[in-house]
Amino acid sequence: MSATAGQVIRCKAAVAWEAGKPLVIEEVEVEPPQKMEVRLKILFTSLCHTDVCFWEAKGQTALFPRIYGHEAGGIVESVGEGVTDLQPGDHVLPVFTGECKECHHCKSSESNMCSLLRINTDRGVMISDGKTRFSKNGQPIYHFLGTSTFSEYTVTHVGCVAKINPAAPLDKVCLLSCGIATGLGATLNVAKPTKGSTVAIFGLGAVGLAAAEGARISGASRIIGVDLNANRFNEAKKFGVTEFVNPKDYDKPVQQVIAEMTDGGVDRSLECTGNVNLMISAFECVHDGWGVAVLVGVPNKDDAFKTHPINLLNERTLKGTFFGNYKPRSDIPSVVEKYMNKELELDKFITHQVSFSEINKAFDLMLGGQGLRCIIHMEN
Amino acid sequence: MSATAGQVIRCKAAVAWEAGKPLVIEEVEVEPPQKMEVRLKILFTSLCHTDVCFWEAKGQTALFPRIYGHEAGGIVESVGEGVTDLQPGDHVLPVFTGECKECHHCKSSESNMCSLLRINTDRGVMISDGKTRFSKNGQPIYHFLGTSTFSEYTVTHVGCVAKINPAAPLDKVCLLSCGIATGLGATLNVAKPTKGSTVAIFGLGAVGLAAAEGARISGASRIIGVDLNANRFNEAKKFGVTEFVNPKDYDKPVQQVIAEMTDGGVDRSLECTGNVNLMISAFECVHDGWGVAVLVGVPNKDDAFKTHPINLLNERTLKGTFFGNYKPRSDIPSVVEKYMNKELELDKFITHQVSFSEINKAFDLMLGGQGLRCIIHMEN
Ligand SMILES: NC(=O)c1ccc[n+]([C@@H]2O[C@H](COP(=O)([O-])OP(=O)(O)OC[C@H]3O[C@@H](n4cnc5c(N)ncnc54)[C@H](O)[C@@H]3O)[C@@H](O)[C@H]2O)c1
Ligand SMILES: NC(=O)c1ccc[n+]([C@@H]2O[C@H](COP(=O)([O-])OP(=O)(O)OC[C@H]3O[C@@H](n4cnc5c(N)ncnc54)[C@H](O)[C@@H]3O)[C@@H](O)[C@H]2O)c1
Ligand SMILES: [Zn+2]
Ligand SMILES: [Zn+2]
Ligand SMILES: [Zn+2]
Ligand SMILES: [Zn+2]
Repeated sequence: MSATAGQVIRCKAAVAWEAGKPLVIEEVEVEPPQKMEVRLKILFTSLCHTDVCFWEAKGQTALFPRIYGHEAGGIVESVGEGVTDLQPGDHVLPVFTGECKECHHCKSSESNMCSLLRINTDRGVMISDGKTRFSKNGQPIYHFLGTSTFSEYTVTHVGCVAKINPAAPLDKVCLLSCGIATGLGATLNVAKPTKGSTVAIFGLGAVGLAAAEGARISGASRIIGVDLNANRFNEAKKFGVTEFVNPKDYDKPVQQVIAEMTDGGVDRSLECTGNVNLMISAFECVHDGWGVAVLVGVPNKDDAFKTHPINLLNERTLKGTFFGNYKPRSDIPSVVEKYMNKELELDKFITHQVSFSEINKAFDLMLGGQGLRCIIHMEN
Repeated sequence: MSATAGQVIRCKAAVAWEAGKPLVIEEVEVEPPQKMEVRLKILFTSLCHTDVCFWEAKGQTALFPRIYGHEAGGIVESVGEGVTDLQPGDHVLPVFTGECKECHHCKSSESNMCSLLRINTDRGVMISDGKTRFSKNGQPIYHFLGTSTFSEYTVTHVGCVAKINPAAPLDKVCLLSCGIATGLGATLNVAKPTKGSTVAIFGLGAVGLAAAEGARISGASRIIGVDLNANRFNEAKKFGVTEFVNPKDYDKPVQQVIAEMTDGGVDRSLECTGNVNLMISAFECVHDGWGVAVLVGVPNKDDAFKTHPINLLNERTLKGTFFGNYKPRSDIPSVVEKYMNKELELDKFITHQVSFSEINKAFDLMLGGQGLRCIIHMEN
């Protein structure tokens, strides 16, 4: 039992007061966890493009003030009523899409879209009482994705927390809390390339490169990376990407370029940018007869995916996934073990480290297309 | 060796001279088969909606004069140079999508989209020399789907012909030459519902009801039929359809009606009308997390399939198929055996019979939404 259990904690959080404006480190109040909630001390967090996307709020619903962050590692500080699976001191990864273990989805072997705790980008409050656990001088501050890890302490539903091996270094495995598990799972659990397959990856950020890593592990013979940022190509070689296509270098659609490179199309493709036109390209570049395209990037709220139905009749498959179809509580502990057993590399995704006070640098790096993941150290 | 081998045959064919105008029974000349072609004597043919769609030529390329027809049973009259798999007298089903047995698709276990002989709705000539084998008074008459079975004799590529058990009644198994194999295969080979699944079928014509039959065979617990024609519902009961939705009866989208009936959506859906709005409904009515929608209906040439990408990210799968993913030469003989072994019923799909001279009645019946398949008897 920690000394702070049951009490309001005053701590630092990076608050987004307005769309696209630098976060401000504020002292906020974090209420104790309610029924089926836990309060976490966040040790490390990183920035995923989904945070940037909702903070910019260009094609998305704006909700401010808000505490972003959903890729993190921490330790349970205290638990609310009814929580039996977790206790103070447990090492955990919060996850933006939860697992209640009771609904139709949680009971299905195919889905991780928990009815109760699935991703909800527009909700800024806890589901139990519709209120926030964060405030500053009495003003509520909204949550993001049920995780809000850009705070020294945060409150989440117990179903949104994966308990992991306490020996795992949280400054590394925090990446499995979103981006790396998402990309890896999108390939291994959803696209499922067979040995010798050709795979195209659209977007060579951390999510896309984790998808490439999945393709490499699956024994893909060619991994074609697509990005507008040519700096990505050097980095991507470390992740098994064998060829590069910069759409800027061609005056024809990228799906056509890829079809020409591969005698009709790739066996699998993964879209990891969130740009709807790239989603269409990723679909149309898979081979007819057997190709499978998987959408991973988060679209804008008014986007429309559009294609001629003949592209489907010609026996292409189109799918999508959140969190690489992993169930956070059931599956993520064993993905952490893969890192522990050296079956999975995480270190090469980490290109930058900053202290919490410098969190806006992580945003600048991502907006500037520099590096992959930036680990934000909450302490020191 | 038939007496007519190597010679031009003069015979009756139902020629479409203009879009949407009744076919005219004409005496035409049918040339001998060229290299890798066979000439067939058609005994029975039936009308599939795809014939109607290209004959109406509303949303499709118009090509006239043309001999339609692609669902049929017949006997090999003579074979061209290089044909070793077939000989005169063999009982066969011509198929609109062929199998060369040599290309990447034919060698893949997943695809039936033969590079050489796949469906091509706009080509009206033979692939070997770009010419027609039909003419009247020297005027060429175009082929349709490489089969043109609305003729007493027709010429096809050898790869577009499945050799079947000569004991099989051609007036029944001719239905396996397109519609019934298509619907059945779309469910069994592509949608693959598991036992206890809920399945929605859009369009309760022969293709849709064959898809329903596939769902029944797979042990589906609920089969929901959607059609604008309420007369279909009685017929559909014989095919295991358990519930009916007529979109006209609701003032909300049919996908919403189905989601409400099924606690969030069906496990599988099959679109068998060709209407692009129904394709979208069929996709959006499958359950998130695991639902699979399969497009079977043939779209218009300018259609666009449109949906919010979130519907895909929410872990729905979208696919399409031609001919139910069956490879015509490799797979259809064993589907015929299923009929012979009484594992598959065909008789209930046959609601009308006409003589060749009355072929326009078959069109009227289909346009009027009456009955399912009409068998056209070429002889007598
Ligand atoms: N489905 C999920 O569960 C899930 C989870 C995490 C992230 N995401 C989404 O995945 C996407 C990638 O996230 P990330 O953190 O790797 O982002 P990132 O910013 O690190 O990488 C994105 C990459 O895509 C490239 N890119 C962007 N637009 C492009 C275009 N039009 N053409 C070519 N390349 C383009 C960028 O140059 C960059 O290299 C985002 O949309 C994010 O919201 C989805
Ligand atoms: N993919 C393939 O390989 C393949 C093969 C054969 C047929 N097809 C296509 O399958 C479709 C069905 O063929 P069929 O021979 O069974 O046709 P059909 O005319 O016998 O049946 C179509 C049914 O759909 C219903 N329908 C039409 N529009 C509708 C709408 N907007 N809402 C609700 N119901 C509607 C009709 O009332 C009818 O009952 C056609 O598009 C045909 O071209 C595809
Ligand atoms: Zn993320
Ligand atoms: Zn659940
Ligand atoms: Zn047909
Ligand atoms: Zn082939």
